[in-house]
Amino acid sequence: MGLLVVGSIAFDSVKTPFGHAEDVLGGSATYFSTAASYFTDVSLVAVVGEDFPEQHLQFLRSRNIDLTGLERAPGKTFRWKGEYTYELNEAHTLDTQLNVFQTFRPRLAEKQKKSQVVFLANIDPDLQREVLSQVEKPALVACDTMNFWIGGKRDALVRTLGLVDILIINDGEARELAGEPNLVRAASKIRSFGPRTLIIKRGEYGALLFGKDSVFSAPAYPLESVFDPTGAGDSFAGGFMGYLANTMNFEDANIRRAIIFGSVMASFNVEDFSLNRLRTLEYREIENRYREFRRLTHFDDL
Amino acid sequence: MGLLVVGSIAFDSVKTPFGHAEDVLGGSATYFSTAASYFTDVSLVAVVGEDFPEQHLQFLRSRNIDLTGLERAPGKTFRWKGEYTYELNEAHTLDTQLNVFQTFRPRLAEKQKKSQVVFLANIDPDLQREVLSQVEKPALVACDTMNFWIGGKRDALVRTLGLVDILIINDGEARELAGEPNLVRAASKIRSFGPRTLIIKRGEYGALLFGKDSVFSAPAYPLESVFDPTGAGDSFAGGFMGYLANTMNFEDANIRRAIIFGSVMASFNVEDFSLNRLRTLEYREIENRYREFRRLTHFDDL
Repeated sequence: MGLLVVGSIAFDSVKTPFGHAEDVLGGSATYFSTAASYFTDVSLVAVVGEDFPEQHLQFLRSRNIDLTGLERAPGKTFRWKGEYTYELNEAHTLDTQLNVFQTFRPRLAEKQKKSQVVFLANIDPDLQREVLSQVEKPALVACDTMNFWIGGKRDALVRTLGLVDILIINDGEARELAGEPNLVRAASKIRSFGPRTLIIKRGEYGALLFGKDSVFSAPAYPLESVFDPTGAGDSFAGGFMGYLANTMNFEDANIRRAIIFGSVMASFNVEDFSLNRLRTLEYREIENRYREFRRLTHFDDL
Repeated sequence: MGLLVVGSIAFDSVKTPFGHAEDVLGGSATYFSTAASYFTDVSLVAVVGEDFPEQHLQFLRSRNIDLTGLERAPGKTFRWKGEYTYELNEAHTLDTQLNVFQTFRPRLAEKQKKSQVVFLANIDPDLQREVLSQVEKPALVACDTMNFWIGGKRDALVRTLGLVDILIINDGEARELAGEPNLVRAASKIRSFGPRTLIIKRGEYGALLFGKDSVFSAPAYPLESVFDPTGAGDSFAGGFMGYLANTMNFEDANIRRAIIFGSVMASFNVEDFSLNRLRTLEYREIENRYREFRRLTHFDDL
């Protein structure tokens, strides 16, 4: 049954203070499913254009990702162009070409409708609901979103939030969605929209979890070299949801572990452009870094 | 012999999005020694003017702080005026009047020269060394500094750093001091100047410790209401050094605990203007919040 993700597959052009990459493999569903594939079976719902090369499909298949739901449409693949300054937490979008994504109407295969765990990556909230309505009886649903939808399709987004268990967004988005600068108050307000669990990503500062009776603060892994933050949030979500789909335990202690696995995947992903670091990553390295997160945060009881 | 601190005592005028306070008790030595007084005996070296009221001295004495080294000089007490926007991490200084601080030449009492643990709060690095040279055989020396000295008296500051065990500064200052945007690399460079331990404060994002073989990430406590960040860094240092002076154990595990106690003190301090929250704080509350830091950061081993 595994984990279902709907999101984008893209060609990214990225410039950072440490280099640049042109038309490399990117997109929320790509990062998410690759990161999640270390933990569980992933099935992907997305669209690419006629220009999308076979080698990228082969890579996704090599990660055991089910591409039944990948549509190839006439036209060009979604393209994103962005830049980062030394403030690596914030991407500056230079160009977005929706291309085949503009008319994408996802239809789930029969097998996908039985999915138990669903991740709605950052796409139009109406599309997120369209996908979710096709899943028969999901046990856990999480979603991401961004400023573009918070400002432009707020009502549709709030309807989506009423249907999800977990929302994963960054701190600026949380403040904007709640209309409240204090994150603790913003979290209460956002949870009142529906998600019983809110995860706020803070880039190089880690992530905060707000649950019913639980607040958890996870650090980011202090890296000597962050080459390209693109896909960090989606790799985080992939590690997080992949671990939850694998264990099917949604209690607080396991959600905390999942957040650390998410943080581990994000920390590897930013070490190189595109998905390059994840192409060579081994599970043994993931476990080792999880242990390093323990050493990074441990202090003794009173 | 307890903990010796040299620093400022001030009248602060502060504006935040949540209110304002005029000519209230402030200064690095004031916040530091009050926070530290919950853990150990503190002896203070500072100067005030003729306008400094008896009630403030009474408060410090009520915290059992030794005021032998407090000089009362002709003229006015140091004054600072600042403002915070919703970006509570950064103070905007509107006015600084050094007043009696301008000609301050600290002379330690005989008893103070025997101090084992010394904190050199954020003052002129030449003054920091002048104080330190009077301490006979300190077991642990820590200091703070700021952009003003990093830019204006770099050579003097580097000489001071060669004499201290622990440096406590914020992230912007660390980047400026090292000339390096990445904090991990900046930490290595700063540690090569002398301090074997570097603590980088990141305001609402907590603190990072860089030691010989150890990196530790401590969160900040997620608060619903941050009223006034003034003195957060000095309260942090006070809790941190106070705990170390009390235990006289400078091993990694104990330094981590001390960082949490520092974070606890900072989290209380920002809940009200000036030192108001610390005026009513009880040790039992400190221990409870330490336990909350445990719950906030705990996740299970693999």
